[in-house]
Amino acid sequence: MVSPMTGYSGTKDDHLKRLRRIEGQVRGIAKMVESDTYCIDVLTQVSAATKALQSVALNLLDEHMAHCVVAAAREGGAEQDTKLREASEAIARMVKS
Amino acid sequence: MVSPMTGYSGTKDDHLKRLRRIEGQVRGIAKMVESDTYCIDVLTQVSAATKALQSVALNLLDEHMAHCVVAAAREGGAEQDTKLREASEAIARMVKS
Amino acid sequence: MVSPMTGYSGTKDDHLKRLRRIEGQVRGIAKMVESDTYCIDVLTQVSAATKALQSVALNLLDEHMAHCVVAAAREGGAEQDTKLREASEAIARMVKS
Amino acid sequence: MVSPMTGYSGTKDDHLKRLRRIEGQVRGIAKMVESDTYCIDVLTQVSAATKALQSVALNLLDEHMAHCVVAAAREGGAEQDTKLREASEAIARMVKS
Repeated sequence: MVSPMTGYSGTKDDHLKRLRRIEGQVRGIAKMVESDTYCIDVLTQVSAATKALQSVALNLLDEHMAHCVVAAAREGGAEQDTKLREASEAIARMVKS
Repeated sequence: MVSPMTGYSGTKDDHLKRLRRIEGQVRGIAKMVESDTYCIDVLTQVSAATKALQSVALNLLDEHMAHCVVAAAREGGAEQDTKLREASEAIARMVKS
Repeated sequence: MVSPMTGYSGTKDDHLKRLRRIEGQVRGIAKMVESDTYCIDVLTQVSAATKALQSVALNLLDEHMAHCVVAAAREGGAEQDTKLREASEAIARMVKS
Repeated sequence: MVSPMTGYSGTKDDHLKRLRRIEGQVRGIAKMVESDTYCIDVLTQVSAATKALQSVALNLLDEHMAHCVVAAAREGGAEQDTKLREASEAIARMVKS
């Protein structure tokens, strides 16, 4: 059964695949540090993992907007206000991280 | 033996500890998605992991500058130019990711 | 008369005030460069102006979501899809800039 | 006479040209808001101005590293430590803004 709380249920497998790849990237970065890889090459991989995480965040947000925010907008009232404030705060955290 | 190529040899254990924590954070995010956690709560954890990765990158860069860039500056010539260009490109990737 | 196209009509004066302050900050940075101010002090002001611009963007986006996206969500259909895609692209640009 | 404190004296005119262009961009954004331009189009220009500011910052930092940081590295001691710490803090502000 699909949770009523998540906007990403249709694309869960995609997100899981990407997150596992990122987990592998971070493990690979630890191995690079372990074996004294040149700093700049480690940094390149850290930037790649950071970009991959931001891309997951952008996709999750898109789905959240297309499902949860749209549903709340149709309902209006306090639910709409809560969803807009939450989305706004999540976007601010993404922009600043 | 310590590699002559890395600026972070003195703090390797700290970096490894932080990277393992981030690996655990990413695994935790996958579990949140797996169990249909509310999108906004997933996004909060993705932003936290992103910030943690950026912090690892800033520390690696500091050590790279304090060791490799300083050594190259004292040597001068082509080695200095290479190290400055590499550092510049790594910083640009961090700012844009 | 208020344009039907903007979500920020109620807060236009605030945005204008902030943008004029940022314009002044950028002019001040040019003056710092003009008078050979120490690089690091110039960089501090560039980061402050960048943060101020991002803050304007976050506020404009909030208002866009609260007005234009909410209205489109209630209308549904192609208008909703367009507004969601536009917002998604604007957020991606903000995260990457 | 060239100030001994700045690493960007050779490229001052370039920086000034870019900063004046950014000042014009910000003024243009205020005009867009003034005339009720559609939010998303305003946001596109805000992101462009933000990117332009970050690019100025990256260039200033490059020159600071190639001149001030290199000179301090050759001098060593407290001056080197100060310059490295300042550069590190400036980079952290750029990554977070």
